[in-house]
Amino acid sequence: VRELCHIHPDADVHSTARIGPFTIIHAGVRIAEDAEIGSHCELGIPTALAHSADLIIPKGSLIRSHSVFYLGSEFGPGLITGHRVTVRENTRAGAGLQIGTLCDLQGDMVIGDYVRFHSSVFIAKGARIADFVWLFPGVLLTNDPHPPSNLTEGVTIEEYAVVAAKSLILPRVTVGKRSLVAAGSVVTRDVAPATVVSGVPAKPRGPTSAIKLKSNSAAPAYPWTAHFHRGYPTEIVAQWMNCLNTIPGSDED
Amino acid sequence: VRELCHIHPDADVHSTARIGPFTIIHAGVRIAEDAEIGSHCELGIPTALAHSADLIIPKGSLIRSHSVFYLGSEFGPGLITGHRVTVRENTRAGAGLQIGTLCDLQGDMVIGDYVRFHSSVFIAKGARIADFVWLFPGVLLTNDPHPPSNLTEGVTIEEYAVVAAKSLILPRVTVGKRSLVAAGSVVTRDVAPATVVSGVPAKPRGPTSAIKLKSNSAAPAYPWTAHFHRGYPTEIVAQWMNCLNTIPGSDED
Amino acid sequence: VRELCHIHPDADVHSTARIGPFTIIHAGVRIAEDAEIGSHCELGIPTALAHSADLIIPKGSLIRSHSVFYLGSEFGPGLITGHRVTVRENTRAGAGLQIGTLCDLQGDMVIGDYVRFHSSVFIAKGARIADFVWLFPGVLLTNDPHPPSNLTEGVTIEEYAVVAAKSLILPRVTVGKRSLVAAGSVVTRDVAPATVVSGVPAKPRGPTSAIKLKSNSAAPAYPWTAHFHRGYPTEIVAQWMNCLNTIPGSDED
Repeated sequence: VRELCHIHPDADVHSTARIGPFTIIHAGVRIAEDAEIGSHCELGIPTALAHSADLIIPKGSLIRSHSVFYLGSEFGPGLITGHRVTVRENTRAGAGLQIGTLCDLQGDMVIGDYVRFHSSVFIAKGARIADFVWLFPGVLLTNDPHPPSNLTEGVTIEEYAVVAAKSLILPRVTVGKRSLVAAGSVVTRDVAPATVVSGVPAKPRGPTSAIKLKSNSAAPAYPWTAHFHRGYPTEIVAQWMNCLNTIPGSDED
Repeated sequence: VRELCHIHPDADVHSTARIGPFTIIHAGVRIAEDAEIGSHCELGIPTALAHSADLIIPKGSLIRSHSVFYLGSEFGPGLITGHRVTVRENTRAGAGLQIGTLCDLQGDMVIGDYVRFHSSVFIAKGARIADFVWLFPGVLLTNDPHPPSNLTEGVTIEEYAVVAAKSLILPRVTVGKRSLVAAGSVVTRDVAPATVVSGVPAKPRGPTSAIKLKSNSAAPAYPWTAHFHRGYPTEIVAQWMNCLNTIPGSDED
Repeated sequence: VRELCHIHPDADVHSTARIGPFTIIHAGVRIAEDAEIGSHCELGIPTALAHSADLIIPKGSLIRSHSVFYLGSEFGPGLITGHRVTVRENTRAGAGLQIGTLCDLQGDMVIGDYVRFHSSVFIAKGARIADFVWLFPGVLLTNDPHPPSNLTEGVTIEEYAVVAAKSLILPRVTVGKRSLVAAGSVVTRDVAPATVVSGVPAKPRGPTSAIKLKSNSAAPAYPWTAHFHRGYPTEIVAQWMNCLNTIPGSDED
């Protein structure tokens, strides 16, 4: 169905891609096979800040309604978004990225594989987000140490780290591998790997492995890869299960 | 006026309902008489997660522009929304629900009568929200005790409770009847009825009746039903005024 | 390009203004020369609460896609917005206002010249925001001292003040001239001029001039007008540079 949508003649839209009504595709957008773009979207807004004149939407992507993407970004296969997401220029993401409803990605960022942003996540320019990271609803990543200024000191989130709802991460902070930032935290300092932090300002509260599963108090809730597999490729889950004994934070008790 | 909108032939739209331009109504949507749907909406997105194939928009509803509703939800009369709200499947709400601009209701929730959500309220699945509750701008209700996991431990908000701006409620918490969560709180434990809590983490600060009206310092500001009646049916307000002496928290001084 | 947009015959749209596809312009909207309105917008929603039947969009404005403006507001030249902003009735703003993506301005407010709101700023009715103020992402300004009530005690933000990300300002608070509210603060009391506050609740932490530039530790980061000039008119920047020695907070060390 391609009724009532505007597709620029210099956009490259695969014949199997579905484009919703009232959606606008600008020049320079490349949409691969079997991608689905919802209604009321605007993809490929030009900007002088983009390092590339293209916007690459890979095979099998699903972009839900009312979303806005600028030119100059590229995503690995399996991109899925909620409604009304904004993605600015120079965003480079790996496979399996999920971007929740109302997320606002300011661009100039690098995102690894299988990263998941829940609703209303805001990410300032300059962020580096590693593989398998989770950012939960209302999380905000900053970049300016003394606003307003010309400095851009983006946040780094390392592999498998989890930032829970409504937490705020201050500029230049590194949230370490497999760590957990509890909901409602304001993180002003680096978070050590496999460590829980919470509070305003956030303070270390112990190893993540000390948190037990509510459904089975004998088992630790972290690393979450031991029990949460929904939506990940089977080969990745198999690798997780094989490697559990060698993951930092998985063998304490 | 029904110009430039897409109404599926298997949608049931009453002849007196108004549908704005650039709006999409999918199959299974039932819109009753005198309802008004704004422009750029998408109503009735199908999902395998919906327990019902319908979306029921009652008589006299007003859904403002850019809103998105999935199939599988049902509302009592008098539904009013702001702009760009998202309502996912399996949301069951009573009469007089107001949902503010940019609210994000994740579905699988039960909402009582005359509940009001101000702007940008996020509600995770599994919430139970009783009659006459208020959630103010930026309030976020969570559901996962150790994210990510497969547990859904939604929040409960009891009758007449008020959660003020930007507060965060952690999983499985019950916010008691006629209580007040002050603005900017992070609520980690149950809140007792007719009690004020505030802070990060939120702590009890006394009875709600200790808060006096700024416009009349001799009168308590809570229960709010004693002085705030805008938009409620006259018979309900009459009942409130008759019952004030028997409401917990209304007779301290 | 004016394809597929709805322009009411009683709207006054200059012949040089560009109106994006799928945009609706209601009666009473006046759009001046060289203004650009993005796609999927709705401008000029009527409301009985508006003090004026017009909406004035000045020369050279840029309103990005999916934005919603009600009737009854007026802006000085140089208005720029992000995507999906909401601006309700009786908003009066000076020159050079920037409103970021997903901002929600509830109306009945006065805004000075060259004010900048970053993404997802929420402003309740009754706010007074002076010239050169910055509100960063996720900032929320309240107005009800004991919600819900009929009182509207808006926030005042004085000249050159900066409110950093995700801060919450409680009703009737005045944030003083050239002050800095650090990220993640909950501000319950007035903030003195040229003072830093932070925390929950926010407390004074010293003069803003004690914060040094990360890129040059010998120079203070505040007043920010000494080093941040992007996007301001050259005559204003010249005035800032001339006046630096006479600005409170600029001469401590």
